[in-house]
Amino acid sequence: MKKRILILGGGFGGVYTAVFLEKLMTKAEREATEIAIVSRDNYMVFQPLLPEVISGSVQLNHVISPIRRLARTARLYTREVEAIDIAAHTVKLSPGAKPVPLVISYDHLVIAMGTRLDYNKIPGMREHAFPFKYLSDALSLRNQLVLALEEAELENDPELRRALLTFVVAGGGFSGVECVAEMNDFLREAVHSYHQISEKDLRLILVQFDDRILPELTEGLSIFAHQLLVKRGVEIQIGRRLMAVSADTAIVEDLKTKQIETIRTRTTVATVPAAAHPILSTIPLPKDRGRIKVDEGLEVPEAPGVWALGDCALVKQVDGKFSPATAQHALRQAKTCAQNILASLRGTRKHVFAFTGLGKMGSLGRRSAVAEICGVRLKGLLAWLLWRGVYVTKFPGLDGQLRLIVDLILDIFLPRDITQFRLFPEEDVHREHFEAGERVFKEGDVGDKVYFIAKGEAIVLRGDQPLAVLNQGEMFGEAALACNHPRNATVIARTSLELVVVNRVAFHELIGCLPGLRYNIETSMNQRIGAVLIWTGKFGSQWPGSERDHAQPAVR
Amino acid sequence: MKKRILILGGGFGGVYTAVFLEKLMTKAEREATEIAIVSRDNYMVFQPLLPEVISGSVQLNHVISPIRRLARTARLYTREVEAIDIAAHTVKLSPGAKPVPLVISYDHLVIAMGTRLDYNKIPGMREHAFPFKYLSDALSLRNQLVLALEEAELENDPELRRALLTFVVAGGGFSGVECVAEMNDFLREAVHSYHQISEKDLRLILVQFDDRILPELTEGLSIFAHQLLVKRGVEIQIGRRLMAVSADTAIVEDLKTKQIETIRTRTTVATVPAAAHPILSTIPLPKDRGRIKVDEGLEVPEAPGVWALGDCALVKQVDGKFSPATAQHALRQAKTCAQNILASLRGTRKHVFAFTGLGKMGSLGRRSAVAEICGVRLKGLLAWLLWRGVYVTKFPGLDGQLRLIVDLILDIFLPRDITQFRLFPEEDVHREHFEAGERVFKEGDVGDKVYFIAKGEAIVLRGDQPLAVLNQGEMFGEAALACNHPRNATVIARTSLELVVVNRVAFHELIGCLPGLRYNIETSMNQRIGAVLIWTGKFGSQWPGSERDHAQPAVR
Repeated sequence: MKKRILILGGGFGGVYTAVFLEKLMTKAEREATEIAIVSRDNYMVFQPLLPEVISGSVQLNHVISPIRRLARTARLYTREVEAIDIAAHTVKLSPGAKPVPLVISYDHLVIAMGTRLDYNKIPGMREHAFPFKYLSDALSLRNQLVLALEEAELENDPELRRALLTFVVAGGGFSGVECVAEMNDFLREAVHSYHQISEKDLRLILVQFDDRILPELTEGLSIFAHQLLVKRGVEIQIGRRLMAVSADTAIVEDLKTKQIETIRTRTTVATVPAAAHPILSTIPLPKDRGRIKVDEGLEVPEAPGVWALGDCALVKQVDGKFSPATAQHALRQAKTCAQNILASLRGTRKHVFAFTGLGKMGSLGRRSAVAEICGVRLKGLLAWLLWRGVYVTKFPGLDGQLRLIVDLILDIFLPRDITQFRLFPEEDVHREHFEAGERVFKEGDVGDKVYFIAKGEAIVLRGDQPLAVLNQGEMFGEAALACNHPRNATVIARTSLELVVVNRVAFHELIGCLPGLRYNIETSMNQRIGAVLIWTGKFGSQWPGSERDHAQPAVR
Repeated sequence: MKKRILILGGGFGGVYTAVFLEKLMTKAEREATEIAIVSRDNYMVFQPLLPEVISGSVQLNHVISPIRRLARTARLYTREVEAIDIAAHTVKLSPGAKPVPLVISYDHLVIAMGTRLDYNKIPGMREHAFPFKYLSDALSLRNQLVLALEEAELENDPELRRALLTFVVAGGGFSGVECVAEMNDFLREAVHSYHQISEKDLRLILVQFDDRILPELTEGLSIFAHQLLVKRGVEIQIGRRLMAVSADTAIVEDLKTKQIETIRTRTTVATVPAAAHPILSTIPLPKDRGRIKVDEGLEVPEAPGVWALGDCALVKQVDGKFSPATAQHALRQAKTCAQNILASLRGTRKHVFAFTGLGKMGSLGRRSAVAEICGVRLKGLLAWLLWRGVYVTKFPGLDGQLRLIVDLILDIFLPRDITQFRLFPEEDVHREHFEAGERVFKEGDVGDKVYFIAKGEAIVLRGDQPLAVLNQGEMFGEAALACNHPRNATVIARTSLELVVVNRVAFHELIGCLPGLRYNIETSMNQRIGAVLIWTGKFGSQWPGSERDHAQPAVR
């Protein structure tokens, strides 16, 4: 029986553990061992270049590398991890083409599952903020920027137009700074293709909790970055935090004065806060703030044969600090981890993770960056060249490097692409969040959604006249939808409001297959036409008998 | 007041009408006229190169061109057309950021809305076939190919594995042939990155209604294309038609023998049949098979000031034939249309559409093509170089041409990308189609969906023992979902079966906001545990009173 080394996670930590294992094993060892990787996607994202996808200076599929070509002998499971059983030495994976979960046993387990954005700390973030972590996030953010320009170009309402042209990025670390810099570059170039929008209509805001951006760097570089971004048109708000997000606003609080600003925007990008992968909370290993505690050889002392590395592990460096969540650290940890798994198989002595970082670099967009490498501080074009050079040479594979170089050359000479891919349809059933006082919809709007109150209260108004207060468990908006009429009343959040929203097509499908639902709505509407303008019946309490002729599916 | 020329459609016909208008107008005319284009997307797809996106030999965003950069002075509405009122001279557009429809009036209307795939003729096509028409289709098809390889790599069930590695393309015209050729190239190269799959496991089938593929060409070229594709591993079935598609099969009928073959496959691509844009059926203009009849100057005789061109118009050529649906014809029609709108504004004589086609070309994949240009027949590498050359030079803009050339050069030297973007989540509420005898799910499967019967009948089995027959309006599968257990019975289609399917997350959201639904399911399940294994209650008929404590939203 082959020994199985099972690696969870397709990022730098996981993939490079497999790569180093392949490299370090003897032929005999290779034959006696199976390396398996579990990754949601069949590619590894080269995170440092992900912000470049926003502006299009690097092509979408040039920041990724197929895992099968990196770790050539490993078995790749393109699946989600559903459960880890440390005692039984098994991992359960999500079903694929066949609706049956897959259970894999292991001899060594490498946990390299990274972090997730923590949506629970900021109300409305899950519903309305654009995360920035995965490849699809970069693409969907880019699409949102183009959509905002397209909409602003056609919009006459000055307030809505301003909201469309306002962009908020939360988090002033490397990720947030690179993100806002690329957004800024892209928007300020793209705007020239829009007749009705001028560059000065654009407002980009970076919200930073700390008292300076890029607190990872020395103050001088941080000031340089701050001034450069401001010069290029980014508004930086320091000492502030994102409190809540809704469809129409970002709400920001000043940490000192406790003053609250409501910024009208349709685009709030969240790069913070990070949280541990939820599955980690289910496994009985010692953790610190969600990160798995490992020894200096990256093994979990309480569970020999279980290893953890990368952002999901708490790795103490030889200098006493904990490894930060960067690619360079994950890469070196992968090497140590591979060495130590082999040491464990061979019965030899283990290595100690001895890397403490080479330096830090961050791009500020077009031809500028900041860097601190081995004590040397660089800024501007030189830092940018270094930054680009380092990441191109670090990109896995010669073909990938060549593609990046071509992108960089083309980016110098060619205009940036302003096309928008509508690849992300809104979910049929989704949630929306409104803060107290915000409007859900307005009299005269097109009715294309039905709303159910999951939490909070809403007021129904006609003109200035309140008609009703709706509570948890009640629904509204279905009248307009069923008749395909404009909304005949306005609904406003009375408190912080959580809504479950069903779109038109899905609602008609559900009406079609739930005869009772259809009958109920039709009856109520017949009774109430001209009286109550938005029907607010509770389901269940008024449920009538079904009639077979209502069971026909709605026309889609 | 400016005269408004309103163009509906962002394809070759529509965009180039605007381009030629801009070019042909005098300065004074430009100032007195507004050109507006309505297009769903803010880019034009260069259709002839779309199949190349499947194999990745051309980058996704290099086959498109931003409309704003092509027609620089035109006003672009990135909207859907919702209604055309010929009598009132207005067009109603879908709402954007503001949920209010937009109504635009016009002096001249150009209808260039192309065609749509007609999903109504083949059962199951809408639910399960991959269309091949838009940019997103090319990307989602490419993802499906990678997904099929990923799944087949992990699958032990030989039958399912075979279904995953079988790919059916319906339609042997240019579109179907180019599509199957690119799929074949991509799969046969990509397969080398998969340890468990060998090239001979792949089965690609082209189904053609006619008695030969590419009937648009002379027989010699058609035979050459046929033989080349067969040599490269494509199975060609002539004289056959696609009868039905389900999640698991493509059903094909032989037109002569009437024999039916059920091909087990997870990937059926439909390039036929085309139908008129549904909005055209609502406007009172003379049509022939859905296409708008125009005079030889492209104007609708019954409605002066209304013009139609491209695939949605029936354009008689000077040789007496009707213009085929190709880019070269749309482009020339756009020029004639622009000239004639100007002639109409100027009161001068109109032009007659005099183009009859330069020839026909089709790619057969890697370095081979067939072409008939001005009576000369070419095949193989020479035809391929011509094909590439023509389309690169026809691509709008020098920057776009440069990008294409770079792609072509890189494609010669670099391996093809096998990454899969999971950008298209399954809809929360969608439809599935099953043919009689097909299995919906099986005992032991993971229960991640709830099913409502929209049409047809299903049988519930435990082992070989039938438990119940379910009819239209009934639901099944919710028990497994609510308890998060595996399916405890098998469901098979008794007749052709149309299902409305709600996925796990959406179902829990709906249960959360429809207290009656939740209460009902819980009660029934408590009553029936151990008795009927799948609860089959009709909604509405058994609806109990709601209880407020059931109104808590389900945890997502």
